[in-house]
Amino acid sequence: MLLNCDLGESFGAWTMGLDTKAMAEIDCANIACGFHAGDPDVIAATLQLAKQHNVTVGAHPSYPDKQGFGRRSMQMQHQELIHCLHYQIAALEGMAKVYGITLKYVKPHGALYNDMMRDNAILKSVLQAIADYPSDLKLMMLATRKQSEHRLLANTYNVAVLFEAFADRLYTDDGLLSPRSMPTAVHDKTALLAQVTQLITHQSVQTSSGKTLPLAADTLCVHGDNEDSIALVKEIRALLSNTAISR
Amino acid sequence: MLLNCDLGESFGAWTMGLDTKAMAEIDCANIACGFHAGDPDVIAATLQLAKQHNVTVGAHPSYPDKQGFGRRSMQMQHQELIHCLHYQIAALEGMAKVYGITLKYVKPHGALYNDMMRDNAILKSVLQAIADYPSDLKLMMLATRKQSEHRLLANTYNVAVLFEAFADRLYTDDGLLSPRSMPTAVHDKTALLAQVTQLITHQSVQTSSGKTLPLAADTLCVHGDNEDSIALVKEIRALLSNTAISR
Amino acid sequence: MLLNCDLGESFGAWTMGLDTKAMAEIDCANIACGFHAGDPDVIAATLQLAKQHNVTVGAHPSYPDKQGFGRRSMQMQHQELIHCLHYQIAALEGMAKVYGITLKYVKPHGALYNDMMRDNAILKSVLQAIADYPSDLKLMMLATRKQSEHRLLANTYNVAVLFEAFADRLYTDDGLLSPRSMPTAVHDKTALLAQVTQLITHQSVQTSSGKTLPLAADTLCVHGDNEDSIALVKEIRALLSNTAISR
Amino acid sequence: MLLNCDLGESFGAWTMGLDTKAMAEIDCANIACGFHAGDPDVIAATLQLAKQHNVTVGAHPSYPDKQGFGRRSMQMQHQELIHCLHYQIAALEGMAKVYGITLKYVKPHGALYNDMMRDNAILKSVLQAIADYPSDLKLMMLATRKQSEHRLLANTYNVAVLFEAFADRLYTDDGLLSPRSMPTAVHDKTALLAQVTQLITHQSVQTSSGKTLPLAADTLCVHGDNEDSIALVKEIRALLSNTAISR
Repeated sequence: MLLNCDLGESFGAWTMGLDTKAMAEIDCANIACGFHAGDPDVIAATLQLAKQHNVTVGAHPSYPDKQGFGRRSMQMQHQELIHCLHYQIAALEGMAKVYGITLKYVKPHGALYNDMMRDNAILKSVLQAIADYPSDLKLMMLATRKQSEHRLLANTYNVAVLFEAFADRLYTDDGLLSPRSMPTAVHDKTALLAQVTQLITHQSVQTSSGKTLPLAADTLCVHGDNEDSIALVKEIRALLSNTAISR
Repeated sequence: MLLNCDLGESFGAWTMGLDTKAMAEIDCANIACGFHAGDPDVIAATLQLAKQHNVTVGAHPSYPDKQGFGRRSMQMQHQELIHCLHYQIAALEGMAKVYGITLKYVKPHGALYNDMMRDNAILKSVLQAIADYPSDLKLMMLATRKQSEHRLLANTYNVAVLFEAFADRLYTDDGLLSPRSMPTAVHDKTALLAQVTQLITHQSVQTSSGKTLPLAADTLCVHGDNEDSIALVKEIRALLSNTAISR
Repeated sequence: MLLNCDLGESFGAWTMGLDTKAMAEIDCANIACGFHAGDPDVIAATLQLAKQHNVTVGAHPSYPDKQGFGRRSMQMQHQELIHCLHYQIAALEGMAKVYGITLKYVKPHGALYNDMMRDNAILKSVLQAIADYPSDLKLMMLATRKQSEHRLLANTYNVAVLFEAFADRLYTDDGLLSPRSMPTAVHDKTALLAQVTQLITHQSVQTSSGKTLPLAADTLCVHGDNEDSIALVKEIRALLSNTAISR
Repeated sequence: MLLNCDLGESFGAWTMGLDTKAMAEIDCANIACGFHAGDPDVIAATLQLAKQHNVTVGAHPSYPDKQGFGRRSMQMQHQELIHCLHYQIAALEGMAKVYGITLKYVKPHGALYNDMMRDNAILKSVLQAIADYPSDLKLMMLATRKQSEHRLLANTYNVAVLFEAFADRLYTDDGLLSPRSMPTAVHDKTALLAQVTQLITHQSVQTSSGKTLPLAADTLCVHGDNEDSIALVKEIRALLSNTAISR
């Protein structure tokens, strides 16, 4: 199971995340495209870092909202959203080419990611955008109870899917992430490592109601925000290496 | 001699230029990349129009300044400018691919264009950006008295140059454009057509002091701002067709 | 009944609307604050025009979305929206002071206006923003079937309301505007003038189903987009002057 | 001698500086107005913090360039710069009113500050902007060898000046700050405290060539970037309290 992480989320004079440390520990970097975070300098630096660590690169496009960090839903028309995604994917893909990197996937960010998971009309816009874009790009999305349905839908667009799971978040019975407003929404280290172990060995998670929910994840989303997150990523990596069925 | 025109300079709810009419009359479209004008929707619409009229497409990147329409010089570092150009070129190139269009050249816009023509350090940043970008892109720049020197410089970066001349602008003895603040800076129709004829038949222009300045232009910059400009472009086209040495 | 019009919606090099002509015909100018349209230069020019024609000035704040012209709903928290409104109101009020103008009211723009009319939570954020702002500002909002309810709510915030009606739009039975997607949503000149006459003389409109809906409007929203709209504004003015009960 | 500090330079999800700690130690807060840093939420939070600590508030306007943090010179016309400043001053002044705070001064930021110090034409635009703005606002600028000349110029605009000195920067013989590219440009703690002592007791600094340059500073610029800067501010405060001639 590959580790993916949101990176390149600094902007101008503002630094966010320990990208240099995180990049050394992960397999796939979701790089911000300049609409919620990132700028041409940040993108260039992040791509060079990915190159150095031989990390697979994906585009991490967003609603156009830097002040809101892409976390505020915006009402966009189908074509408008497709063009918005094409612009961001194109900017990142072209800059990646400069450093000899081939873009491999697209993972929508923030509110767009959540909107796509709860509203099939938006998911269809995202799939159409990827289908229309003339490079071989996968869609990275959340593995939920609707995983099969989502894969079938993506198939109709001829788009391959990478399903991701979260190590640190408590799942609802629907396989969605419990809202952060809930006290138990974010796992402590013990619960987090237990969840990873279960995901690897049994391809399932325990939900908030105690049920076992099957989830087949291709990749695990980790965070590089601060020293604590980096330490956790290292523990998760160690766990994956020690597990017989790991890649 | 090919006709080139700045297009795709609308933004959001604001329309600029008669793109549909202009596109039908020109050979090369310099398309704004979203930093001084244009947005993902405008870019998509302009590319589709270019496709429909079989017009060659170039990127028209700018300093990042939408309010100032890229007409205000900004102090940028060498690498900063290169990344800024890569982002814009990449965004346009990738969106062009969606419509089956291959990007052919780069023409800097506004203050960046002027800065590049007067300051070799900035020209070198532009050339480096194009050299580093892994597609075969030419640089479109002003044909001036320094034309040979500029071609030699571009050669050292292995970048091909398209020199452009202006139909409607009075030239100084240095082969630069007289500033618009000068009363005679912009030609009337008669002077404009005379300048085009001289450019085609003698590869030269008459300067403000009455001298004959040799200028070998690959392309002529025309405008699609309003009905008058469109009428002028049609006259220039007719003139080019009727001239024996025209393409 | 006062005529109000959205003005100052140009941006940078992009012109929108015939502000000079419109300003001469209206009583109240809703001036864009730079978030969906307008910029410091446009605001300064529009304020000077208002001063010259002795037109009352209101702030026309929006969601922060220039590309979308404030027409796309954005999910904002209560406090976030209040700060967003305070910033825009303050910018316009302070610039108005430079020209000796006192800001009189606030009319939210586009999606924010529509959201406020359909969702009381958002209306409450708008009212709280105006209540907290230490100048005597009214709220301009749509006169609908809920007019009394809205006035009562505003009273609890100690905010006075200016109710506006639309001359050119067909009303639903709820007193909302028929969506523009409906073929009959926008009146022709005859229907428009009839609606104005009925608003003045009977304080009511005919709805899409043919019912008579009482609407007490303090002000009528008119448009200055083009020569046709300006001509209509002049006809509406003449009609108001000729009507006995006009101001 | 009052301590002033640039604050409110966070933006959206990006945090910059230890504003809470810095605000507790200073007399005057230069608050970013949203053009190089800050946004309506950040401004509101910073103003509330200033209120809580009874700190005097000034506007810290900038060229419109968030990605460049206002550190890149931009070519702006006289009126354009004036409007740009009015908008920012107005936004901050109006939001300050919401929290019962009266704006007291204007300190231009970054490249605009440097441009104003080296180019009298730009200084005149800044002075005109403050003179035209109908509130009683001082200009905060660098105390240099030209201090008297600058005060005379400001007098012609009827604008009062607050001269600031820097504790941590080596001065040139002209009383300008040595460029940061110079190895000795930034003082260590000992040199910094010595410079403060000399500023207080002798109203002068030692320049890079060892000369004594008289500088009458009303205020000292300090920094709140990190724990080290906060510790230094505390030492400077202690020094000022212990010095007989301190306020």
